[in-house]
Amino acid sequence: MYKSPANNNELDHLISLLSKIPGLGPRSARRAALQLIKKKDSLMRPLSSALASVAENVHPCAICSNLDVENPCHICDSTKRDRSIICAIEDVSDLWALERSGSFRGLYHVIGGTLSALDGVSPSDLNINSLMDRAGDPNLKEVIIATNATVDGQTTAHYITEQLKDFDIIVSRLAHGVPIGGELDYLDDGTLTTALNSRRPF
Amino acid sequence: MYKSPANNNELDHLISLLSKIPGLGPRSARRAALQLIKKKDSLMRPLSSALASVAENVHPCAICSNLDVENPCHICDSTKRDRSIICAIEDVSDLWALERSGSFRGLYHVIGGTLSALDGVSPSDLNINSLMDRAGDPNLKEVIIATNATVDGQTTAHYITEQLKDFDIIVSRLAHGVPIGGELDYLDDGTLTTALNSRRPF
Repeated sequence: MYKSPANNNELDHLISLLSKIPGLGPRSARRAALQLIKKKDSLMRPLSSALASVAENVHPCAICSNLDVENPCHICDSTKRDRSIICAIEDVSDLWALERSGSFRGLYHVIGGTLSALDGVSPSDLNINSLMDRAGDPNLKEVIIATNATVDGQTTAHYITEQLKDFDIIVSRLAHGVPIGGELDYLDDGTLTTALNSRRPF
Repeated sequence: MYKSPANNNELDHLISLLSKIPGLGPRSARRAALQLIKKKDSLMRPLSSALASVAENVHPCAICSNLDVENPCHICDSTKRDRSIICAIEDVSDLWALERSGSFRGLYHVIGGTLSALDGVSPSDLNINSLMDRAGDPNLKEVIIATNATVDGQTTAHYITEQLKDFDIIVSRLAHGVPIGGELDYLDDGTLTTALNSRRPF
């Protein structure tokens, strides 16, 4: 029999909601609830308002599906970005990772996941049609497909490449190889084989 | 240089608050924020209201410092609990653990932490004086000191025992020994020694 920890509807409800946040299980949700109550004014109330405000104001960009308070998002709307190149990524977190690296100055397109026969995700469930619409833009020169290097990610990349082949644009993908700072001894065979096959002159 | 992931004040603010929840670091806070936005109606808005409502309505019980919407809490207020025995625990999470076990029907007293010279926690920072007040109740027969089996927990237990020795009550503590389901081979030496020294006839 499940026993509610607090025997107290409001607290139990909070704990059950907290335990649905990815990264928090039932035990850490209980710890989190107690910590939040100890920090009512510095954390609990601000978090409550921040959640309400983000729920109200943050929406996917109509062009690239990035999350922002503005629509189009600040990247699609920026005059400083290179509009001739689009990087297609699986999720907004991948967009953030690329922005943190500071190495890409083009536009993005958030696919919203990967194709998956197992989970029943078909191309119509993803933002692929909207990418095709953008591919028709005469200013566009290149689409970088930066899906994850997983089986589903690569399947999705192949599908998108296939769809883009009728457009007069370059379709590229990220390089695979040894991570910077990585030691060969710790790398898996697949990465090592790819790094060897894709070797480049010094 | 720290780069804000979302480049978007509201989302960045939410992520920085989420990363202060124990159990969530910066990366899992970002993942949590994205999941919450995907589940706006089923999780994000309910969580926002639950946080606000608990912040408003849940307070420490004036008698035992348990957290409840009522004051005194539902345990102190219950007619079904044994009022002759008080179990003193470090934190509300310990109270919840004992309540889940269903094996204790007395009252509680939440100490609110442990004495610690290192962290500068003195007896006046804890709910020890209020325990002494309750110890004067003529109906009280026993206080179980159930602080954690850590150095600080045991120091606190000794201090409380010392303070309670002038009262005409039994002061007891939890048994130490082999956990139920535990294998001897995996136990630390301290527990094994204690279990051996506290052996009981079959």
